[in-house]
Amino acid sequence: MTAPDSPSPLAPKKFPVLPPIAGVRFAAGAAAVRYAGRNDVMLALFDQPARVAGVFTRSKCPSAPVDWCRAQLPRGEARALVANSGNANAFTGAAGLSAAAAVAEATAKAAGAAAHQVYLASTGVIGEPIEAGRIVGVLDALVAAAKPDGLMGAARAIMTTDTFPKVVTARAKIGDREATINGIAKGAGMIAPDMATMLAFVFTDAPIAAPALQALLAKSAARSFNAITVDSDTSTSDTLLLFSTGAPEIADAADPRLAAFRRALDKALLDLAQQVVRDGEGARKFIEVRVGGAATRRAAKRIAFAIANSPLVKTAVAGEDANWGRVVMAVGKAGEKAERDKLDIFFGDIRVAHAGQRDPDYDEAAASAYMRRGKIVIAVDVGVGTATAKVWTCDLTKDYVAINGDYRS
Amino acid sequence: MTAPDSPSPLAPKKFPVLPPIAGVRFAAGAAAVRYAGRNDVMLALFDQPARVAGVFTRSKCPSAPVDWCRAQLPRGEARALVANSGNANAFTGAAGLSAAAAVAEATAKAAGAAAHQVYLASTGVIGEPIEAGRIVGVLDALVAAAKPDGLMGAARAIMTTDTFPKVVTARAKIGDREATINGIAKGAGMIAPDMATMLAFVFTDAPIAAPALQALLAKSAARSFNAITVDSDTSTSDTLLLFSTGAPEIADAADPRLAAFRRALDKALLDLAQQVVRDGEGARKFIEVRVGGAATRRAAKRIAFAIANSPLVKTAVAGEDANWGRVVMAVGKAGEKAERDKLDIFFGDIRVAHAGQRDPDYDEAAASAYMRRGKIVIAVDVGVGTATAKVWTCDLTKDYVAINGDYRS
Repeated sequence: MTAPDSPSPLAPKKFPVLPPIAGVRFAAGAAAVRYAGRNDVMLALFDQPARVAGVFTRSKCPSAPVDWCRAQLPRGEARALVANSGNANAFTGAAGLSAAAAVAEATAKAAGAAAHQVYLASTGVIGEPIEAGRIVGVLDALVAAAKPDGLMGAARAIMTTDTFPKVVTARAKIGDREATINGIAKGAGMIAPDMATMLAFVFTDAPIAAPALQALLAKSAARSFNAITVDSDTSTSDTLLLFSTGAPEIADAADPRLAAFRRALDKALLDLAQQVVRDGEGARKFIEVRVGGAATRRAAKRIAFAIANSPLVKTAVAGEDANWGRVVMAVGKAGEKAERDKLDIFFGDIRVAHAGQRDPDYDEAAASAYMRRGKIVIAVDVGVGTATAKVWTCDLTKDYVAINGDYRS
Repeated sequence: MTAPDSPSPLAPKKFPVLPPIAGVRFAAGAAAVRYAGRNDVMLALFDQPARVAGVFTRSKCPSAPVDWCRAQLPRGEARALVANSGNANAFTGAAGLSAAAAVAEATAKAAGAAAHQVYLASTGVIGEPIEAGRIVGVLDALVAAAKPDGLMGAARAIMTTDTFPKVVTARAKIGDREATINGIAKGAGMIAPDMATMLAFVFTDAPIAAPALQALLAKSAARSFNAITVDSDTSTSDTLLLFSTGAPEIADAADPRLAAFRRALDKALLDLAQQVVRDGEGARKFIEVRVGGAATRRAAKRIAFAIANSPLVKTAVAGEDANWGRVVMAVGKAGEKAERDKLDIFFGDIRVAHAGQRDPDYDEAAASAYMRRGKIVIAVDVGVGTATAKVWTCDLTKDYVAINGDYRS
């Protein structure tokens, strides 16, 4: 692994303070799963069973922790979450499942809970057997050390090639009470829907029952973690979990009392997802792709991802080249309906192509100046219908190749 | 455009001599379409109308020459082919179609043919208006200069970021006569099915009627030009044309007299397609991906392409890292049926993973030594059925980013 020397130039300038949420405490520790001299395990500990919702990778080769979480999720209650970096415990066969179960059982024992109340996530190298004992060995200490303001430390413990910890906090009124949302994420490469996280854990004290929590999470993920890509590669381990320590009072995701909470949750998840893109391996530019005029929302999203995943579009942005011909190429390759002779393309506010050809008024100098910015908006109208989509990605630089050409050594 | 300084390390050590084919002559000239001081237009001139077959990009935004060829193809006869490099005449609206028609009409006049007997192809920058006059201005000279042994010069004239001309020749018996096949291709980036050429022109004197020629070409393309990828990006301009100067005696592609010819054509097209991959932008390694044990041939090909297009797999090969965990990831993301716990993965003859986990006997030193080779074979058995597929790609290096980060400047 080529360790990043400094934070991404797209990193947030400062981190928010994460206010404590009643009923959940956090700890981080060093288990030397793979990395020495740093924290690589985190624990979230719930004083009472919390409601839990989850969205996972669509990979046909999911990791053992993903299998574990999927199996527990129908019960919808959590007492602990244990996540480690350095080893994904993926493609590790029966031994991997045993390791996951061993960590869950040891956590349950340390926390006075049942194993099915323990959620797991792992990120790192695929295919290497994981030594469960290393994680089990630190659990008692983590339980003892867990504290309400430990979430930032937990965010740091799950970093791999990340150059900064990803955290978010939000508040929303539910009736006359105020709910808090705190979230953390990690991810920098092998980022593509669906899911695109790699890992994201979100905590709230909102009084919502598990099925409603699941419905809210699935909907919100579609426009955040499932609308980002770094490199089109989908992890075996992508895991997004939402925990609520509040009483399960509201049972319907569409309850009007949740209007402000839904907006806050959407905004928080989008913020976290965009932080993952901003920390894309080697990224120097943050790219928003907007597609309009599509036949369906699904078509719009597929066209947007064809643009966002195109190595030629991404290298052009890296080269600060307003090469909209490659955007045309990407629209064409998406396989969705598009009217070539009605296509409009914008870089920011600059319309570079109109009605299927170069905009006669297009000022290349202005476009070149725009391309030097840190955030680039590419907007396309495909001239067919009215459906729209937005996705986010980053540029493709030599540093991406350098980081990934020597990951395991 | 960043001009390549030297041929790809994967280039053939020497070029074959292309024997003349009766009835077709070639010329190349300098029209300064975009590049100065080099040939950028080629002509193939048929003494009598030749039979023609074609396979084109599936892009929804095809170039004007692709539109032109598709419109003429149902007539199935050709007197001339004109191809230029430097400008793709794609996304150029009505002006682009007029430019294509102008070149076809001028060619027809110079050659004493009808415009519908003229085939066109263009490769280069997308979205820039093309000046038809530049090409028209050299047509008389090209017609006058056309000679039977001019095909290698034509191959050089259509190069863009290519570091070497791609040529192939083959012979096959049809009855008691011997047929010759000569082919040329260009392509180095924006290479993905379907098609994946960008441009390939194949000439033969085999006595085959146009519909049979089309059937042979479509079948052969599926396992050659539509089984390669450099960067997953599909050109607007991909064009594969097969011309026959022989009398149209054989009307059925399945005619037993064509058995040897079919094999020779398949081999020649595969050779040309693999040369395109060997010249992939920035390529240092040639990669063959073999998938077996899939539910259907289509599933096998999709899984193979998921591996071949994965930036993480390609950067691992660039880094000479036998990172088979990323192969697992790519199998998982393909979305096709795969039995995670039956998966076998080989690098060359080295089985690195067996039955869903690391092969206990796998020797990392041997795998590392294997990865230093110029050709890498990645083989996967997905444990579901019996269908297989093979595709070819190259590694992803910093040079790919360098070449494409500054193409237009």
